[in-house]
Amino acid sequence: MKRTLGTCYYPEHWPEEMWEADARRMAETGLTWIRIGEFAWSRLEPSPGELNFEWLDRAIETLGRAGLKVVLGTPTATPPRWMIDRHPDMLAVDAHGRPRKFGSRRHYCFSHEGYGRECDRIVRLFAERYGKNPHVGAWQTDNEYGCHKTILSYSDAAARAFRVWLQDRYGSIGALNRAWGNIFWSMDYASFEEIDPPNLTVAEPNPSHTLAFRRFSSDQVARFNKRQVDIIREYSDAPASHNYMGRFTDFDHFKVGDDLDIATWDSYPLGFLEDRVGADREHKRAFVRQGDPDFQAFHHDLYRAVGRGRWWVMEQQPGPVNWAPYNPAPLPGMMRLWAWEAYAHGAEAVCYFRWRQVPFAQEQMHAGMLRSDNADAPALLEARQVADELRDAPDVSAPQAPVALIFDYDADFAWTTQPHGKGLSYFQLIFDTYKALRKLGLSVDILRGETRDFGGYSIVSAPGLIYMPQDLKKALGQTQAHVVLGPRTAARNADMVIPVPLPPDMPGLEVTVSRVETLGLDMPMPLKGGGHFTGYREELEGAADVAVELEDGQPAVFRHEKLTYVGGWGDETALKRIYSEICALAGIETRELAGGVRCRDTDGLRIWTNYGAEPAETPAGRIEAAGVLLEKL
Amino acid sequence: MKRTLGTCYYPEHWPEEMWEADARRMAETGLTWIRIGEFAWSRLEPSPGELNFEWLDRAIETLGRAGLKVVLGTPTATPPRWMIDRHPDMLAVDAHGRPRKFGSRRHYCFSHEGYGRECDRIVRLFAERYGKNPHVGAWQTDNEYGCHKTILSYSDAAARAFRVWLQDRYGSIGALNRAWGNIFWSMDYASFEEIDPPNLTVAEPNPSHTLAFRRFSSDQVARFNKRQVDIIREYSDAPASHNYMGRFTDFDHFKVGDDLDIATWDSYPLGFLEDRVGADREHKRAFVRQGDPDFQAFHHDLYRAVGRGRWWVMEQQPGPVNWAPYNPAPLPGMMRLWAWEAYAHGAEAVCYFRWRQVPFAQEQMHAGMLRSDNADAPALLEARQVADELRDAPDVSAPQAPVALIFDYDADFAWTTQPHGKGLSYFQLIFDTYKALRKLGLSVDILRGETRDFGGYSIVSAPGLIYMPQDLKKALGQTQAHVVLGPRTAARNADMVIPVPLPPDMPGLEVTVSRVETLGLDMPMPLKGGGHFTGYREELEGAADVAVELEDGQPAVFRHEKLTYVGGWGDETALKRIYSEICALAGIETRELAGGVRCRDTDGLRIWTNYGAEPAETPAGRIEAAGVLLEKL
Amino acid sequence: MKRTLGTCYYPEHWPEEMWEADARRMAETGLTWIRIGEFAWSRLEPSPGELNFEWLDRAIETLGRAGLKVVLGTPTATPPRWMIDRHPDMLAVDAHGRPRKFGSRRHYCFSHEGYGRECDRIVRLFAERYGKNPHVGAWQTDNEYGCHKTILSYSDAAARAFRVWLQDRYGSIGALNRAWGNIFWSMDYASFEEIDPPNLTVAEPNPSHTLAFRRFSSDQVARFNKRQVDIIREYSDAPASHNYMGRFTDFDHFKVGDDLDIATWDSYPLGFLEDRVGADREHKRAFVRQGDPDFQAFHHDLYRAVGRGRWWVMEQQPGPVNWAPYNPAPLPGMMRLWAWEAYAHGAEAVCYFRWRQVPFAQEQMHAGMLRSDNADAPALLEARQVADELRDAPDVSAPQAPVALIFDYDADFAWTTQPHGKGLSYFQLIFDTYKALRKLGLSVDILRGETRDFGGYSIVSAPGLIYMPQDLKKALGQTQAHVVLGPRTAARNADMVIPVPLPPDMPGLEVTVSRVETLGLDMPMPLKGGGHFTGYREELEGAADVAVELEDGQPAVFRHEKLTYVGGWGDETALKRIYSEICALAGIETRELAGGVRCRDTDGLRIWTNYGAEPAETPAGRIEAAGVLLEKL
Repeated sequence: MKRTLGTCYYPEHWPEEMWEADARRMAETGLTWIRIGEFAWSRLEPSPGELNFEWLDRAIETLGRAGLKVVLGTPTATPPRWMIDRHPDMLAVDAHGRPRKFGSRRHYCFSHEGYGRECDRIVRLFAERYGKNPHVGAWQTDNEYGCHKTILSYSDAAARAFRVWLQDRYGSIGALNRAWGNIFWSMDYASFEEIDPPNLTVAEPNPSHTLAFRRFSSDQVARFNKRQVDIIREYSDAPASHNYMGRFTDFDHFKVGDDLDIATWDSYPLGFLEDRVGADREHKRAFVRQGDPDFQAFHHDLYRAVGRGRWWVMEQQPGPVNWAPYNPAPLPGMMRLWAWEAYAHGAEAVCYFRWRQVPFAQEQMHAGMLRSDNADAPALLEARQVADELRDAPDVSAPQAPVALIFDYDADFAWTTQPHGKGLSYFQLIFDTYKALRKLGLSVDILRGETRDFGGYSIVSAPGLIYMPQDLKKALGQTQAHVVLGPRTAARNADMVIPVPLPPDMPGLEVTVSRVETLGLDMPMPLKGGGHFTGYREELEGAADVAVELEDGQPAVFRHEKLTYVGGWGDETALKRIYSEICALAGIETRELAGGVRCRDTDGLRIWTNYGAEPAETPAGRIEAAGVLLEKL
Repeated sequence: MKRTLGTCYYPEHWPEEMWEADARRMAETGLTWIRIGEFAWSRLEPSPGELNFEWLDRAIETLGRAGLKVVLGTPTATPPRWMIDRHPDMLAVDAHGRPRKFGSRRHYCFSHEGYGRECDRIVRLFAERYGKNPHVGAWQTDNEYGCHKTILSYSDAAARAFRVWLQDRYGSIGALNRAWGNIFWSMDYASFEEIDPPNLTVAEPNPSHTLAFRRFSSDQVARFNKRQVDIIREYSDAPASHNYMGRFTDFDHFKVGDDLDIATWDSYPLGFLEDRVGADREHKRAFVRQGDPDFQAFHHDLYRAVGRGRWWVMEQQPGPVNWAPYNPAPLPGMMRLWAWEAYAHGAEAVCYFRWRQVPFAQEQMHAGMLRSDNADAPALLEARQVADELRDAPDVSAPQAPVALIFDYDADFAWTTQPHGKGLSYFQLIFDTYKALRKLGLSVDILRGETRDFGGYSIVSAPGLIYMPQDLKKALGQTQAHVVLGPRTAARNADMVIPVPLPPDMPGLEVTVSRVETLGLDMPMPLKGGGHFTGYREELEGAADVAVELEDGQPAVFRHEKLTYVGGWGDETALKRIYSEICALAGIETRELAGGVRCRDTDGLRIWTNYGAEPAETPAGRIEAAGVLLEKL
Repeated sequence: MKRTLGTCYYPEHWPEEMWEADARRMAETGLTWIRIGEFAWSRLEPSPGELNFEWLDRAIETLGRAGLKVVLGTPTATPPRWMIDRHPDMLAVDAHGRPRKFGSRRHYCFSHEGYGRECDRIVRLFAERYGKNPHVGAWQTDNEYGCHKTILSYSDAAARAFRVWLQDRYGSIGALNRAWGNIFWSMDYASFEEIDPPNLTVAEPNPSHTLAFRRFSSDQVARFNKRQVDIIREYSDAPASHNYMGRFTDFDHFKVGDDLDIATWDSYPLGFLEDRVGADREHKRAFVRQGDPDFQAFHHDLYRAVGRGRWWVMEQQPGPVNWAPYNPAPLPGMMRLWAWEAYAHGAEAVCYFRWRQVPFAQEQMHAGMLRSDNADAPALLEARQVADELRDAPDVSAPQAPVALIFDYDADFAWTTQPHGKGLSYFQLIFDTYKALRKLGLSVDILRGETRDFGGYSIVSAPGLIYMPQDLKKALGQTQAHVVLGPRTAARNADMVIPVPLPPDMPGLEVTVSRVETLGLDMPMPLKGGGHFTGYREELEGAADVAVELEDGQPAVFRHEKLTYVGGWGDETALKRIYSEICALAGIETRELAGGVRCRDTDGLRIWTNYGAEPAETPAGRIEAAGVLLEKL
């Protein structure tokens, strides 16, 4: 498939007389896709029922005439001010009980039915009007679900919906009390009506309660999204998408993705580095103008899975942003590198956000492809270079990788509910594992937790999967792949209760976790032969073979045939060592990569990237700082 | 007296058919005491007035038949959900004005009279039914007063009760205005009705106001507890107890203890290390799996005083807990060491918390003596060893120590109200002093601030006693013991006002604190001859002898005959040096202990413990890591 | 002009029989000015309308008879408790929506009209009664506007007043929507009534919205203050003043000052060091008992500008205070040094706060000139020494300095609204610049942003002036002085929108900021030839000469004739280097000062101060630790 470029555009921000020149310049730059519309509600419906869509008709027409294709966004992330007067209780409520007010965006509670009907109405207006428009090539629902921590709401609307959700799930209040162990501190409920969201309790709420509320909150997002897609599909055959974000784990992206055709995500490598990448200062200083070398790749692989193969970068950082703790400028070349890395992972399109820097409001310091004064910004020049290169490059596809890594949002909910040690998170465990695999030169597929068919993989890695249904245990026990489990595998049942027999209770692997301990990250536990467990460690008993021991003589890793259980959180050395050995057993070749150099294999091409600020050597030759190298396989 | 062992058990958490085997196994392990009942309200009274006590009858009978004795807990820390419907305003309110909701435990305000009457009712039901039960050997009121920061409540109920308390204390509003100096910022009140709890004020509230609210809040706990004890005593002769915690200083444990027969406390050496022990990282890393070597001993000595000689460990950490920032596993041997250390300080009983790890709810990751799958956990094996050792060991008693250290909750309230320097706390000052005495090999008695008879002590240490009544000054001036005062001795009157003449105004010691300064802990002030003052320092004037000088030539320690005044917060070197010298004057032998080795003298026995992770040498011979050594005296 | 000394006195805190002796002792010490009255409302009007001014009459008379002059403060910072019953909604509301309660001081919202009328009434009572009193030599309005973060209030009163302010400023809601770019996220308003204060929004509010609210809040202070001054002037010819604070930037002190005759400020060199001076720990340790060597000087220069030449220190720290994180005692000599430094910058009077340490209420640990027991405290002795020295010293005046530095509160509002990098602040940028100039031995005048006549200056420095009106650009372009601009000069228009053409768009200087980046302070960007940019840096284009380059070859400083543009935040080395060079171009002699030594030139005198804890050498000879040296010029 030919890969494409695009951008995000806000015709409502600019005088109409600029649109045509903008469209021409976009086309000349080599762009294909233009996303519009997602924040424009107040101009489309300035007061309730007063519709004003003609300008949007003209904007689409102008773009289409220039040969561009439109991704049309529903504007539900930014309801106009009048909406709050119609539905004063539609605002989400934070964990402290404060309504989250109008004045920015995402000011709604997913559970508010009145607002839900308003969304139905505006989406239907969009879909009716543009469902068959030849220039509208794709749809986007809403914008960045979860941004600004908007998944969890403690509003009355959410409380009511939560009770219904619980009733559906548990049937009777007695069943809920039993499932949650509410007897523990006399927390039994007599009816579902008595249950509140789990905030502002005196001590920690029951973790079963917390986990249920997180699952409910996630389901509300999927429900909200599905309403929009269902309406769009009544009128349009164009694919529907949503733009996810980096390291957002408050809702199940796979479940939302089930109702969409394409997964997209908004990739801000520099914006995410300071707050979302778990790394030390030295690492952050080294990559401050490039981004973490694995963070983008991880999300590319994740969203390829969420999109069942079809995925885009919907917003690609084009220069400094405005919203991170610090806002550096990318090294020259990075905006090209990021695009190529996306293609290496199978992206259909990479769209730079935004076309022109807007001089007003919250994102006035967010770079665009053009400066506010309409001069070319560096992103435009690098995008044009990518467009030129794409014309000559072979097609890039994303074949099945040899290694699969399971990423399960529900497991993240459970870890967040009870991490057992300060700062431990499922996402970080998975990302550390991914990073180790990447540094061994491996291409990785990410699989959702519901996967049961592991055909074609040599290795399946599933660390931290705190709840593991029986049929997944069975599937992992029967696959031909080498399977890596632990730590914390199957440590809880579906309701956040420790199962008996004790975990992991894995058929084919005689290992029992007899005890768990957590320590500060400044107290690493050394392994014989190199590497450490840090932060989290399990005491293991069992008849399987001990593959790795701790320096204190306790077993650290057990293995029986193709099943390996890792009883702790390995540091980079430990993880690379454990996976190298398994790769050797599985007959997979590895290569140690250092610094900022990484590679990814596609059909017939190995694509090298160098996130480093200095040139480096690869088996395929020298690679420049911020450089890309295409190696024929 | 023979020392005993026990555990905490929740029959309501387990199928009734398991109870008998549990009881048998408890007895076989060598346990004597089984605490039950304290969280069971919702199963005893599932709806208002619907009583269901038969299962508890059977549980007590089952335990009793196995030869075990029951400590029966009143369930008032966990009112059922229906209670909130009956008394919606019974919830405590936090300092931000938010009600502290149902969903965990301790969801009540001590000042709410409606809930108080409900407690009367349920306690009376308990006492009537079990007051003469031969298997009920002791009572526990409620559970861990103050846990989850529940002493201070800003509810309307608390505000009303506070006003009554103020009226009782001050009689007239004019007297209160004068006592507090309310003229200072035009803060005069015209009536008690105008006074609110001191939260959410624009700047710091009047410290007299804050201190009064802390005293009131403490008194409310004592009043709440006394209601329960009075009812129990109508029906039962068994001793009444309450389980205190480590480093809880928000209420006066001595005053609560005045109404009880036995003081117990819940000792979590690893759980407390990270957050409650003031120490540097190196120390915390060294003792991460053992706990601080002095923290338990300090509380043992404290609660021996609170219980007027009778005290237990009601909950002994049995393995990793779930609630600390990090949750390490104890070194093998520690669960035995902790028990022996308790006996060394005169404990009548040590009860491990809990019998079996419960797989659900908040504490699912809290270890027990048994694992969730009913297998022996390490605590069971170590408890059995202790039981065996107790059978052969001589009786252990706690004779009067040569050194007394005054610990006064009211002083802690005052320091908390105005620490004068960030992070300074009375508790830490006392604990630092205690630690220095322990490291000199001394056994210490803790005395409450109301003590006036110091007969039998060679040294009485009373640092930081910010308010000192005249009769205490007189008693300290007349005792035969060496007395150590300062810093901050008698620095305020009873209403948190600086007295004139200036402090300490101590008969027999011509010393005046002319000025006070506080500095960051990274700016220690060196003393001539070694050691430093850190954080807090007083400028002293006076005619007494200068015993220690600062490097800058200012006096640091004054002494006249048996009275010593220390004008600052000494570091370990300074404290050991000052107390060594006083011990020499008092004819008390000291021995410098290092690392994790400590000792405690009982009648005829010196009990050595080694909190270190390596073996060590003592005058009585080699002691293993996590080891205990009994030396005949 | 002869310089004077004074103190702050609270007759209402002390028995009337002490007043006469106090007055005599003040006079003997050499004091001239006694400020009284500003917290006394509850004793002057114990209940609504019940007036009791006789004691104040007698206090003024007693002071006057001793030859002292009174500064009379209006008591509006401490409304009595009954005021809250009359106006329950007069309390300010914090950003979390919580009313800020009675019980300390400053418990009012500037926008509450009911309280405004009460202030009119009490001020009129004061002015009528004492307007012609011969002993009342000056007035003070209220006390420390802004203390305890009281400028921003989110009350209903503030919201209503904000809407009126917006209507006045923008005329129509369409104009506001356009000016703010509210289309950005569909944030358009249909009427002013729909606009709330910008708090608790889901994401960052529109920066135009935030900036408008800050400007409104600042204007409310000026309006509040002017009401009082207008009433005082109906009855009195004595000058009116207000006591500002250190590093308070939440309201425009120049605008408040426009309605006053004298600017005063409250100088707490040790109290401010820990929290308000941006410096590393080493610096703070070195000056912990002296204060930062430049912080006082900066504010002296600032308030000389605010007072249009007339300014005082109204509260001079006299020893340890009670309210800082740590509260050290000043080195001997510092209370004299601080006074001389104030005179060196043109202070008319220096008043120590307070006369006698008050033993009760919030400031019981705040030192005075006397101890609580009426003994002399060190401040009294040093004040007496200053009084003696003043008798013999030549007059000290503050002539125009060679260097001017613009400080603009509105720029601080804008930086605070969008700093673009964590921890970046306009105040710190200005202070860093000031510090560099001081360390080059230069005397500096501070000018407000509205200045258009720069006559007499050799250098005008205006870093960080984020909005620069056209006439200021013109004035700076035409002055004969060397002008230093950047970073961030003219980066926004008046409504916080990026202008096109891009900044700085400065006539006479062909420089364009093409891009901005911010980095953590641990990632300094080296300059060729020494020094660094830290935190903030601009990419510059232009035809002007490159005066300094970054190590990476990018231009860092541009210059054309007398206009210099600095494209980043220089560290000390960079700033000293850049300004040294400009001084050389301007023909101004510099001298590098190190450690704690500084100097300031007055007419005929160079006054040296040594903030160091060790003696030092100056061109004028040796200077003691905490010493002052007067050098004839």
